[in-house]
Amino acid sequence: MAVEENTSLITLRVRGKRVSGVQTSVQVRNLSPVLIDEPRQMGGEDAGPNPMEYVLAAFSGCLTVMITQVTHEMGFQLGDLQTTITGTLDPRGMMGTPGVRREFQQVIADVQLQTEEPKERVQQLREQVEARCPVHNLLKDAGVVLSGEWSRL
Amino acid sequence: MAVEENTSLITLRVRGKRVSGVQTSVQVRNLSPVLIDEPRQMGGEDAGPNPMEYVLAAFSGCLTVMITQVTHEMGFQLGDLQTTITGTLDPRGMMGTPGVRREFQQVIADVQLQTEEPKERVQQLREQVEARCPVHNLLKDAGVVLSGEWSRL
Repeated sequence: MAVEENTSLITLRVRGKRVSGVQTSVQVRNLSPVLIDEPRQMGGEDAGPNPMEYVLAAFSGCLTVMITQVTHEMGFQLGDLQTTITGTLDPRGMMGTPGVRREFQQVIADVQLQTEEPKERVQQLREQVEARCPVHNLLKDAGVVLSGEWSRL
Repeated sequence: MAVEENTSLITLRVRGKRVSGVQTSVQVRNLSPVLIDEPRQMGGEDAGPNPMEYVLAAFSGCLTVMITQVTHEMGFQLGDLQTTITGTLDPRGMMGTPGVRREFQQVIADVQLQTEEPKERVQQLREQVEARCPVHNLLKDAGVVLSGEWSRL
């Protein structure tokens, strides 16, 4: 497999334990545990975001990393950065209904940038970020409908 | 769009703010903020897991939710539950190298169950969970190579 011939790969590993009910405590390196749960109406105790909320949070974090990286490369002046990520899910997928997507149907990623840079440079930044961001491409390659507005703060 | 004709959809929304460097604080409902960062060698301050570690954590949490749900449906006796999720990434993808996957190349999900149930029932549980788990299907539909062992604790 090509993967194993490539020595530049990064390996990430996390370890989860069910704490109670549908709640998981996940250990990542030596950081504080990540607590994942479901709201009470989904049978949880609401001790933390649910798994798909964490996927959206990861997308928000990934946009920050990639926007910071690409603005550095471009010499793009950037102040504050905010993201709002909205995903829609059909719960029948999780219940096993055939023909219904299990993962998100669509995800909207709205990005707000504090910048005086011209519109064309903002567009150039967006294209680079969307081409390279791992979470954006994970959703895109899975066939999730992606959209969003990039605007000024 | 089919999505909008369906009234049973669940909408999830998260809001992220860049705190400093590549660090994001993500607000999910009224829960404690999710802190996302990168290790120092990636330009961060290591204040929390990185975005792709959160995707793996979400997979761990999703397996707990789905295994709990399906064991209830099956009347499957289950004690402790642990998951180890390992993903490999090629960092050249994030740097924009053409032809290199941006998201995971492969993900290994190892599941350990404390149970006396027979092998066939464990296999039946696994098939149901993999067919229905949103994060499993997100990775699968994106073309990530998925594997893993289900064993007893």
